[in-house]
Amino acid sequence: MSRATFRVSCDRFPGLFEFGVTVDVWQHTGILPPRVTCALIRKCGAAALRTLDERRSGVRASRVSGSPPDPPPSRPPAALGGNSGKGSRAARRGGNMFSRVKSAVVSFVGGVMSGPHSADHANAADQPLRFPYRRPEFLGLSADEVECSADHMARPILILKETRRLPWVTGYAEVINAGKSAVNEDQACCEVLVVQRRSGSCSTPSRTPTAKRRSSLPNGEGLSLRENLDSEGLVFHYWALFDGHAGSGAAVMASRLLQHHVVEQLQDVLEVLCNLAVLPPTCLGEEGLHETLVPHRSLSRASSLRGAAGAPGSPCAPPPRFFSEKKIQHESLVIGALENAFKEMDTQIEREKAVFNISGGCTALAICYLLGKLYVANAGDSRAIIIRSGEVIPMSTEFTPESERQRLQFLGYMQPHLLGGEFTHLEFPRRVQRKEVGKRMLYRDFTMTGWAYKTIQDEDLRFPLIYGEGKKARVLATIGVTRGLGDHDLKVHDSDIYIKPFLSCCPEVKVYNLTQYEHGADDVLVMGTDGLWDVLSNEEVADAVTSFLANCDPDDLHRYTMAAQDLVMRARGILRDRGWRITNERLGSGDDISVFIVPLMYGNRQP
Amino acid sequence: MSRATFRVSCDRFPGLFEFGVTVDVWQHTGILPPRVTCALIRKCGAAALRTLDERRSGVRASRVSGSPPDPPPSRPPAALGGNSGKGSRAARRGGNMFSRVKSAVVSFVGGVMSGPHSADHANAADQPLRFPYRRPEFLGLSADEVECSADHMARPILILKETRRLPWVTGYAEVINAGKSAVNEDQACCEVLVVQRRSGSCSTPSRTPTAKRRSSLPNGEGLSLRENLDSEGLVFHYWALFDGHAGSGAAVMASRLLQHHVVEQLQDVLEVLCNLAVLPPTCLGEEGLHETLVPHRSLSRASSLRGAAGAPGSPCAPPPRFFSEKKIQHESLVIGALENAFKEMDTQIEREKAVFNISGGCTALAICYLLGKLYVANAGDSRAIIIRSGEVIPMSTEFTPESERQRLQFLGYMQPHLLGGEFTHLEFPRRVQRKEVGKRMLYRDFTMTGWAYKTIQDEDLRFPLIYGEGKKARVLATIGVTRGLGDHDLKVHDSDIYIKPFLSCCPEVKVYNLTQYEHGADDVLVMGTDGLWDVLSNEEVADAVTSFLANCDPDDLHRYTMAAQDLVMRARGILRDRGWRITNERLGSGDDISVFIVPLMYGNRQP
Repeated sequence: MSRATFRVSCDRFPGLFEFGVTVDVWQHTGILPPRVTCALIRKCGAAALRTLDERRSGVRASRVSGSPPDPPPSRPPAALGGNSGKGSRAARRGGNMFSRVKSAVVSFVGGVMSGPHSADHANAADQPLRFPYRRPEFLGLSADEVECSADHMARPILILKETRRLPWVTGYAEVINAGKSAVNEDQACCEVLVVQRRSGSCSTPSRTPTAKRRSSLPNGEGLSLRENLDSEGLVFHYWALFDGHAGSGAAVMASRLLQHHVVEQLQDVLEVLCNLAVLPPTCLGEEGLHETLVPHRSLSRASSLRGAAGAPGSPCAPPPRFFSEKKIQHESLVIGALENAFKEMDTQIEREKAVFNISGGCTALAICYLLGKLYVANAGDSRAIIIRSGEVIPMSTEFTPESERQRLQFLGYMQPHLLGGEFTHLEFPRRVQRKEVGKRMLYRDFTMTGWAYKTIQDEDLRFPLIYGEGKKARVLATIGVTRGLGDHDLKVHDSDIYIKPFLSCCPEVKVYNLTQYEHGADDVLVMGTDGLWDVLSNEEVADAVTSFLANCDPDDLHRYTMAAQDLVMRARGILRDRGWRITNERLGSGDDISVFIVPLMYGNRQP
Repeated sequence: MSRATFRVSCDRFPGLFEFGVTVDVWQHTGILPPRVTCALIRKCGAAALRTLDERRSGVRASRVSGSPPDPPPSRPPAALGGNSGKGSRAARRGGNMFSRVKSAVVSFVGGVMSGPHSADHANAADQPLRFPYRRPEFLGLSADEVECSADHMARPILILKETRRLPWVTGYAEVINAGKSAVNEDQACCEVLVVQRRSGSCSTPSRTPTAKRRSSLPNGEGLSLRENLDSEGLVFHYWALFDGHAGSGAAVMASRLLQHHVVEQLQDVLEVLCNLAVLPPTCLGEEGLHETLVPHRSLSRASSLRGAAGAPGSPCAPPPRFFSEKKIQHESLVIGALENAFKEMDTQIEREKAVFNISGGCTALAICYLLGKLYVANAGDSRAIIIRSGEVIPMSTEFTPESERQRLQFLGYMQPHLLGGEFTHLEFPRRVQRKEVGKRMLYRDFTMTGWAYKTIQDEDLRFPLIYGEGKKARVLATIGVTRGLGDHDLKVHDSDIYIKPFLSCCPEVKVYNLTQYEHGADDVLVMGTDGLWDVLSNEEVADAVTSFLANCDPDDLHRYTMAAQDLVMRARGILRDRGWRITNERLGSGDDISVFIVPLMYGNRQP
């Protein structure tokens, strides 16, 4: 064995990505060690993998010639460890050679590749793509650059070019997975948008969105932060990350369209939102009535409540005399707009799947800044934190089979037909065996967080709706994330049991009042896909970012992108020993990793 | 007007309760001021009220003669303010005089009395009581003392007599409401219990509880804190508060029986619990198999997962080769035992309602100390906090129509028949009127925390499932608390719509590792019904308790009861001006108030 350190960069795209790698080089030893497999694939396999996968998914990209590597000896499944992919069920599909190559990659990175999912989308291959595969528009990559970045072995870290600038000089960096899927299934979007007044009145809004996207220029420079509502409309800033699974179609589509759904929802409430002096009217077009209401004279008794407005039991009740009226804040309208935007986005994917090939699903983490507040909408297992004076403020929570267990079990209990007679809504610590019928086994129901023993019966032999722990937890033995967009035709393998009813497209929205605080140059919001957070804690991220920024020139507008690059590097690690390694010899992330670092001080002034 | 200060005490029970009151005495002024009404009722009304209510509820108590007061002029409902009762729908029922008396009381205390609910229990009056009404057993009150304590005007604070002592010298104090219900619907229990081994084996447990209650003696003294599992069994300490509504039956029953359900559930896992050296076996009676499992070789792919044990799609799959097994901690078994104990208690109430009169429902807050940990199980809107070194550690969260809105709406959406065609699962800021059909009104669905506008349609004219804000929020226009025991026959007024499906008897259980910390004499756990927390914040309670205890002799074993009395006094306030007033001229609580103060230093040593 010999050790060698390489400086890796791409001659065709100098400055775009480069990094150092220390590699131990082994001789062939009978059973091919994973690192040698990777070296082989690195030479010619990545392009081959991509070519194969493109053919299936319909992704158009220039093909690179190259013969596949000698297939390495297949390894027993028991050797598979580490993170499994969210769409891992497809790992068995595909050609034999392809599978084996993937298997080797998987052995190396501790992950499972998601495949083309042709079985789930029987007709999808015949349909045109809704959008071609791409990397985030703001990176401004050519097709060749996109292809070069998708090297599962080198895993180059892509950053924003120095000539490009995002709103608020937001920093961005990303890296592809180590073989889990052929393409990087993360997607990102960062724009400044304007919600314009509709031509019609507010109470009879036109359904035609008239938003104007102001940052559709590849280079975001020159954008000025205007008054919240100028003659053009309401300006808002938007950052979003999407983590795709079982295909990149939903993630690409959501990264292109979700912001327009947000615009459309905000348009519905534009007039109300911009009239901060008055609380949003309960009913549009009857502000006159609203004025006559007696505030705080509310339901003090159920009887007055019920008598108030023809409530049940009093169908011919007189007009209301006393009733309460909940006061809704403007902030709640923005939250509602984001919630409904996610819903509309999901509905659009479902609708357009009838005519387009839109593969897979994706998580979505979208952040909007408007009217002085940051709104963080999260559906999935990405995460956003604010780092203020070095302290962490969590701005999202993750939605996983474990965190949503009780909701999912409750649904399975209420609608047992969704389980297709093959799953049980009860949770057991492991699979129940037939010989255990009649014995007492630990279980928990949707009402429980603790565990108790129950006598096993025949129906308990069904597979548990929620099964596995941590990153390996699955819903219906299929999916490891419980909120997001797409996945409409995802089914349990070899069955007609749909996953979608258990998934939710509804985000949780948290609000941060940006104008309430003074922010320094090192106060930032960090958004990352789960690839980042799987290996770094909030505190590790905060420490890394804070110490990195402290060593930067405060006037360097590229510092946030450099900090994002540093973060991705820390999460991916370097290729050493038997895989990607990070601090303290821990395993780096083999997943796609995408990171935005948004400086907060620009909420109130122009960078 | 003249002002007078009275020292109030009860001659028949010296030392049991006494307090000072400053009263402004008015002349009759046409519209009778509430304070005069109260003075009248105080003279003879409380007994009259009680007599009337006893006749309906079947509570047996010695009757006190006395004629009802002159009915005060009825006040417009608009003047009703403050807290409304949980079972407020019954306020309209009952005789005219009775209603008017109650109305006056209500005007005074800002609450609504819960009535006898004869309509809900058509046959209940013919059935025997499951348990007679009482105050907590450990108070050791005679029937006369119970009656004297139920003075809605004087509102004497009942405390533990000096000759009595609870485990850990726990402090206790309570006060009756200011007219909301005829009797104090709060109940309490504090005991030391022993879970004994069943005669049979663990895998075939006998269903006969063999627990021995060790503190059934009126005087808890002499109890020794033994080894966790001595020859007798597993000793545990138990404190519980129950806040009844719409009758006292469920609260009284739960205060007598819940602890035995806990014992029975713990019996199921006794052997496992006391074997701390080994994690609880997944399946009882097959520890041998358990040993052969390969740990941490788990589902890395859905395929191996599904193939593992005859999962869907592979009915004839071979025996499992690779599967994960979740490791369950002992702590989770205690949590599960508490969760199932609540469920069994609720089931028993439902079952026995067939033959007994068990009126109303109740919240339940139960705390168990065993094996070095405090387990706080809460179903309802009572609250427990730990005060350690003056800092507050919340040990429960409240379950209300607002905090459980999304769960309730989701259920209404999934099972619309539960809404009887009269309610909508959507929430609106106020009642929708027919003339608003076609207009756009604010709403939110079960998926939303924000609000958006929707075009009102005919079905939106139905009454909202959740309606009202804060203490006035109601489920199905009927009940203001969403978890607890009982309420099986509670229906929406004049309808066949049952409330119970929307209520949950499942507690949330939080754990505090008592042995992990050193506790001083002023470190305590405070349990209180909502009457306490409605008017005092966690911090106010912590400040009050901490400063009170600091001024006590540390060796005075009565100090925790004195602190509890102080707390109840602070929450009830004193009778002044137009009602019960506390600090800063705020309104005191007109609700029943019950408080335990549990010193934590006795977890590891005998008081």
